[in-house]
Amino acid sequence: MGRVEGSIKISPLLITLSHISDLRPRISSIRAEGKSVALVPTMGFLHEGHLSLIRKAKDECDIVIVSIFVNPTQFAPHEDLEKYPRDISGDSERASGAGCDMLFIPSITEMYPDGFSSTVSVNGLSSVLEGEFRPTHFQGVTTVVLKLINIVQPTVAYFGQKDAQQSVVIKKMVNDLNVPVTIVIVPTMREQDGLAMSSRNVYLDPVQRKDAVVLSRSLDLAKSRIVEGVRDPQKIIAEMKELILSTGPATIDYVEIVDADLLKKKDTLIRGESVLIPLAVRFGSTRLIDNIIVTV
Amino acid sequence: MGRVEGSIKISPLLITLSHISDLRPRISSIRAEGKSVALVPTMGFLHEGHLSLIRKAKDECDIVIVSIFVNPTQFAPHEDLEKYPRDISGDSERASGAGCDMLFIPSITEMYPDGFSSTVSVNGLSSVLEGEFRPTHFQGVTTVVLKLINIVQPTVAYFGQKDAQQSVVIKKMVNDLNVPVTIVIVPTMREQDGLAMSSRNVYLDPVQRKDAVVLSRSLDLAKSRIVEGVRDPQKIIAEMKELILSTGPATIDYVEIVDADLLKKKDTLIRGESVLIPLAVRFGSTRLIDNIIVTV
Repeated sequence: MGRVEGSIKISPLLITLSHISDLRPRISSIRAEGKSVALVPTMGFLHEGHLSLIRKAKDECDIVIVSIFVNPTQFAPHEDLEKYPRDISGDSERASGAGCDMLFIPSITEMYPDGFSSTVSVNGLSSVLEGEFRPTHFQGVTTVVLKLINIVQPTVAYFGQKDAQQSVVIKKMVNDLNVPVTIVIVPTMREQDGLAMSSRNVYLDPVQRKDAVVLSRSLDLAKSRIVEGVRDPQKIIAEMKELILSTGPATIDYVEIVDADLLKKKDTLIRGESVLIPLAVRFGSTRLIDNIIVTV
Repeated sequence: MGRVEGSIKISPLLITLSHISDLRPRISSIRAEGKSVALVPTMGFLHEGHLSLIRKAKDECDIVIVSIFVNPTQFAPHEDLEKYPRDISGDSERASGAGCDMLFIPSITEMYPDGFSSTVSVNGLSSVLEGEFRPTHFQGVTTVVLKLINIVQPTVAYFGQKDAQQSVVIKKMVNDLNVPVTIVIVPTMREQDGLAMSSRNVYLDPVQRKDAVVLSRSLDLAKSRIVEGVRDPQKIIAEMKELILSTGPATIDYVEIVDADLLKKKDTLIRGESVLIPLAVRFGSTRLIDNIIVTV
């Protein structure tokens, strides 16, 4: 039985704000009490992955603020902005249950008022991997994340390892621009069969859902090969692609083995270094990403 | 008799820091005491214009931090980065005398370490007027100003009206990106004959120095015409250009009458609205800018 704000039912126990001017004084008071503030930025439709971020945030900080904002500027015109799944009422219950103290659910015009014209870009890191297939994506992400950090001024902001490149890009932005916040990356949560949790998994039909397990299996395969001593990234990538394509109808956007910080493709694997193995694969019109970090 | 840090003589009374890691804990302590912090970002070679910013900052805030950084990314390759005038020792004395509590003088590698790759842009406003002649300039300005604001986390940051478009662009960036700082714009300081104070005035030879007075005279002329009831911007601009070119050898980059916030060229002047009249004129290789805001 939620209180209704606009047409949205929200958890009665959770402070839910949609205006920056309402949020800021509350957070100022919290900070003035010497309390630490965590920000968990999300696009909503919260699953266990998000909840693990909220729980970790609550473990480490006094007050946890979860933002829900399906950011239009990180979607290209042909992408799934319109059909992106939403469930504010359920999100509110789940966030509250995981330890969220305050929900921030701004409207698009609250975040991008008429005449909005500023952008934040991390060059280089934003144009490889996902950036090759989604060229405007990371500029949308870095701009909205910097806005959310500036609005909330958290001590710590939490992001999921599932969006590996996003994590690298955001850490670079924060470092380059001297943004006074600590970024914490939380491990990917997986379904029992290994599929990385994602709001987009609901798009999968039952057959695709079963086929999609091959993504985490291909990452496990890569890890095994590295443990076995294979040092040629191309050999490992070829095996992964073969496995993915052998399972069912799937289109591979990319499978790569890259430097974990600079995202540069590895020519060879060197003992002791950490590599990121990211992939993006489409099952029908549903595009999934996954990744693993392996220390060689 | 300054203490020597590196090869730079600095005022013995002034705390002078060049590392972000030294500056931040000091400012945190100041803020923890509940004191307000002012930032006055400069490129050094301080003149009365800068000092008026520092004095106003000291009037309004508890602690005044002046940064001196000749930011390479706001100069184009053909511009005057190399010969830009520098006088850290004199700056230190002058800043201290005007009420500065702390000087921040970072090196280029402190601000832009190897691999730096982030940029902040304000689109639209950055490509008109100065932006037509200096297309990469404002991206350099907004990026470094956001960095300085993030490093110092001031309550208020002070900028001079002399760089009118810079003021508009920075206010837009701060607003768009929700940067938690107040921006204050301080009126232009002028020499007795009306020339706007600028570190670049030292480039002028005696004849150019005398000729350059025509810039403020042309702005006065524009104001008179508006007061007299002239409502056609093109008529006023033509008169200003004629006056400037009649004085001596000068090359006009632009003279415009624009909306004071959006920087859009005015077709006609409407009673009650504020317009910005900015100009950029070259005397030999020295490029000067000036402007006036007039309420019609």
